[in-house]
Amino acid sequence: MEEHRHITIYDIAEKLNLATSTISRALKDHPSISDKTIKKVKKTAEEMGFVPNTLAAGLRGNKTKTIGVLIPTITQPFLSSLISGIEITARKSDYSVVIMQSHDSYNDEVNMARSLFKSRVSGVICSLAMETKNTSHFDQFSANNVPLVFVDRVPKGYNTFRVVIDNYAAAYKAVKHLIDQGCKRIAHITTGSEFGHLYNERKRGYIDAITEHGLTLDDNLIITLKTMTYEEGVRASNKLFDLKPIPDGLFAPGDLLAVSAVQTAKKRGIKVPEDFAVIGFNNDPISEIIEPNISTITHPAEKMGSAAASIIIDNIEKRREDEAKEITFLNTEVLIRESSKKL
Amino acid sequence: MEEHRHITIYDIAEKLNLATSTISRALKDHPSISDKTIKKVKKTAEEMGFVPNTLAAGLRGNKTKTIGVLIPTITQPFLSSLISGIEITARKSDYSVVIMQSHDSYNDEVNMARSLFKSRVSGVICSLAMETKNTSHFDQFSANNVPLVFVDRVPKGYNTFRVVIDNYAAAYKAVKHLIDQGCKRIAHITTGSEFGHLYNERKRGYIDAITEHGLTLDDNLIITLKTMTYEEGVRASNKLFDLKPIPDGLFAPGDLLAVSAVQTAKKRGIKVPEDFAVIGFNNDPISEIIEPNISTITHPAEKMGSAAASIIIDNIEKRREDEAKEITFLNTEVLIRESSKKL
Repeated sequence: MEEHRHITIYDIAEKLNLATSTISRALKDHPSISDKTIKKVKKTAEEMGFVPNTLAAGLRGNKTKTIGVLIPTITQPFLSSLISGIEITARKSDYSVVIMQSHDSYNDEVNMARSLFKSRVSGVICSLAMETKNTSHFDQFSANNVPLVFVDRVPKGYNTFRVVIDNYAAAYKAVKHLIDQGCKRIAHITTGSEFGHLYNERKRGYIDAITEHGLTLDDNLIITLKTMTYEEGVRASNKLFDLKPIPDGLFAPGDLLAVSAVQTAKKRGIKVPEDFAVIGFNNDPISEIIEPNISTITHPAEKMGSAAASIIIDNIEKRREDEAKEITFLNTEVLIRESSKKL
Repeated sequence: MEEHRHITIYDIAEKLNLATSTISRALKDHPSISDKTIKKVKKTAEEMGFVPNTLAAGLRGNKTKTIGVLIPTITQPFLSSLISGIEITARKSDYSVVIMQSHDSYNDEVNMARSLFKSRVSGVICSLAMETKNTSHFDQFSANNVPLVFVDRVPKGYNTFRVVIDNYAAAYKAVKHLIDQGCKRIAHITTGSEFGHLYNERKRGYIDAITEHGLTLDDNLIITLKTMTYEEGVRASNKLFDLKPIPDGLFAPGDLLAVSAVQTAKKRGIKVPEDFAVIGFNNDPISEIIEPNISTITHPAEKMGSAAASIIIDNIEKRREDEAKEITFLNTEVLIRESSKKL
């Protein structure tokens, strides 16, 4: 098996346009080197993911066979299914899986990426934090040939592996279903986050389904939330139910939001689906437990996790070409339950 | 700061009653050593958590500041709250948290403990897998002075830190509440697992509350499950509803089981709480969303996580005495909601 290329003092020297002997001394706090240079060299070394030689030698002989998973939260059922898929595939090849949650914080994501790198994971699977707007903290992996796969919330224009669903098509299908049930004023909940462009894609699918079926696009029916919590969902639903007339349908980009809308409707005496049809997204377990049951979009989260883990493992075992590529899962389906079934 | 003591070739030599030179050669596959001895030495070295010297030296200079969390599953809300508590406390001291899930498998727990050890975590917080019946796979941590804290599902008679709630008292309170509401035939769901003795403690609390209040203990009202899933809960509930007469109350040792009982009751036309009062455990988010809302037992999961992380960090920073001790949280409370409120 070929060894991964590690960052050396030559790389740092080249980047800073300094002699390798200067780099080497600076890293050892040699008195002949100015504090300013020492600081600059250490900062650059850190950024480039430099691992001192003695240590690196030891590390190469002691591979961890661990896949690091860096995701916003473990509690979202979509992500826990994704993790299941990763774990099942990893176990088959004797890899372990460690999970870290960013809680949608950019700073935490940066620190955790660093921590995964330092603990010498074999590869990283990441779904981006909502706050994240740049991906330079992932460069340490690519610079050291640690395979990196983005899943679901993926960055635009970053040259690495990506595993996604067709969010546009799934959203279009969901809204088309509501239109087929006779809905004319369909609301939508979305977020302002532009970077991990999944919610944008869902919104685009919503807009196109509305306009292509001769319905009127009404900005009052689109609620933009900062976070996708149950409480925020209740707030958004109350906003929609304060409109006169209220919307007759809702496409929520997540089941928890759909549940919050159904429960808020019930509290306000609004009949679901007769007065207000609801479809969610993800087929979370709660969508089946709640009454009325929530119509939703199914997705292959477990398969996506499995695909992501396979990319990492194949890449390490050199069975796969080293080029970045995107896998788009097309098999999302509308799962019709009570909350949207008017006919 | 004092260095943790690492296993050396002297320790292996002593254990196998061989010369240190033999150990050293065996670890390097030296031709003068028999295959049998090489195998034996490597196996023992692995078991004792031996880290080769060059590597160990590098490692000591490159502490990971990472807490490993090894739990049955990340999806259980109790455990995700526990993780939140760990993360909040860890972040304050610049520690990261990596999570691994055993899915209640003993084999996976053994492999993951090994993997955490190899990736040089600073400390480990563990809630045992349902299958686990011995804890020798945790010896590598104690042997290398890596602090280890068991939380919630803790082993009996293993000399290390433990953070738990008083499960007996909490269960007693839950059943007492049902008795106060007028229930006479109270059912209970439990598991057969003896090792992580939490469910046993809850069962003991149930039994004592029943007998100490002059009610009759009826074995038919105690259902023992292998796993605590929603589907198993439905099965258990149907078993209870097939009894003549049906029980008039249920203490479920988890909210998901309580939800399954309420939903099954509704499907069979049994009124909750009038005909059948239900109390769960944990105050999971779903207990508040479902209708009728589920009465439950609250627990300080986040505080428990925080306490566990503090033990690890204080232990590493040597601010705490090195003796094993148990922290028992007493502040569990009965949270009365619709599912048990008959009066």
